[in-house]
Amino acid sequence: MKKIEVVQNVLEANETIASRNRQLLDKHNVFVVNIMSAPGAGKTSLVLQTLRRLRDKLNIAVIEGDVASAVDAEKVQNEAKAVVQINTRNMPESCSLMAIMIESALKDMPLDNLDLILIENLGNLICPAEFALGEHKRVVIASLPEGDDKPIKYPLIFVDADAVIINKMDLVSHVDFDIAAFRRSVAGLNPKAEVFEVSCKTGEGIEEWCSWILGQAKATATKQ
Amino acid sequence: MKKIEVVQNVLEANETIASRNRQLLDKHNVFVVNIMSAPGAGKTSLVLQTLRRLRDKLNIAVIEGDVASAVDAEKVQNEAKAVVQINTRNMPESCSLMAIMIESALKDMPLDNLDLILIENLGNLICPAEFALGEHKRVVIASLPEGDDKPIKYPLIFVDADAVIINKMDLVSHVDFDIAAFRRSVAGLNPKAEVFEVSCKTGEGIEEWCSWILGQAKATATKQ
Repeated sequence: MKKIEVVQNVLEANETIASRNRQLLDKHNVFVVNIMSAPGAGKTSLVLQTLRRLRDKLNIAVIEGDVASAVDAEKVQNEAKAVVQINTRNMPESCSLMAIMIESALKDMPLDNLDLILIENLGNLICPAEFALGEHKRVVIASLPEGDDKPIKYPLIFVDADAVIINKMDLVSHVDFDIAAFRRSVAGLNPKAEVFEVSCKTGEGIEEWCSWILGQAKATATKQ
Repeated sequence: MKKIEVVQNVLEANETIASRNRQLLDKHNVFVVNIMSAPGAGKTSLVLQTLRRLRDKLNIAVIEGDVASAVDAEKVQNEAKAVVQINTRNMPESCSLMAIMIESALKDMPLDNLDLILIENLGNLICPAEFALGEHKRVVIASLPEGDDKPIKYPLIFVDADAVIINKMDLVSHVDFDIAAFRRSVAGLNPKAEVFEVSCKTGEGIEEWCSWILGQAKATATKQ
């Protein structure tokens, strides 16, 4: 089974580089969050809301991952201390950010002057589950219009999440989404995951999410 | 660059099997549509609407691709002549259906008694763009809540599409989505793509979509 061996080697190499990234980040006391979701679930909107709420309390940088374009990086560049855009278009089979891309991005970032890096992964519920980046926390956004069955259909990304955000709560009366059923599916896969109900459009629930991030960042800094 | 060679080999092997699938389908006069989208954009709903409108005119089977679960196959099993579920969970790095999975599924299908197979690919805008399955037509669904920038951020899947469906038109007054801008982006990448505005919830636009599918199926059958 040659193909599986190759994939295994890629994943092992990725883990090694992810550990190295984590050591570098811990040395500089920088807390890193890997934000994952399907396309259009609200990663950029969550990054923007988080920047606006927390930029007076923390020095925040953003790493924007996209297959193509810099539209997300342009949206956040006025709000963050530093923004690095990663385009994966010319990397065959890159359906996730990988640790080696983050290693390269970190070289361009003023780590001594940062407290928090938000990484916006590619819009994909499959591949990012398999590639550690060196992050401290993994966050998955699900949005109401996608339907409540995503944890059943894409379980791995939910199994390893530290937090799950239900976004687009402003559409709750316009779509069929059973919040209790969704929460039960997440709890069944991952009882420790924090679940937040938010609307990046109206700001609903953003304060609770930002309090959690702030608490996690402080707890990580204290431990070191 | 060993990794790239390996990926190249996988893609080449996939193309060979896809051509073989296509020959088999043409021999049996079965028209096949590969339906792709982000998670939750409405692939299963489109399959259901298409089955309900066209099952009196065509003998239709469905191949359901999912990372895990059979929830979609269960939804369509009463409406189709045959349903095959493919779960990719235990195949490392399977972020798309691949031609070899379709080859295996076709062995279980009554090809002599079928006119149309609808393939529901995995919910992903990246990998499925690269893997031909042997299909006659490729369809991408984008849904309004995802935002109008998806062709800019995930161009490849739009470049090769024969049709692009804008779904969830019932939410048009509740979300920010510039339909003209989206259409311009698609036309810039792929001027030949047909674009349909539909709501799988209300049925809006489904008739035009089904007329197109019916016309394409007949045109393909006539040519052989």
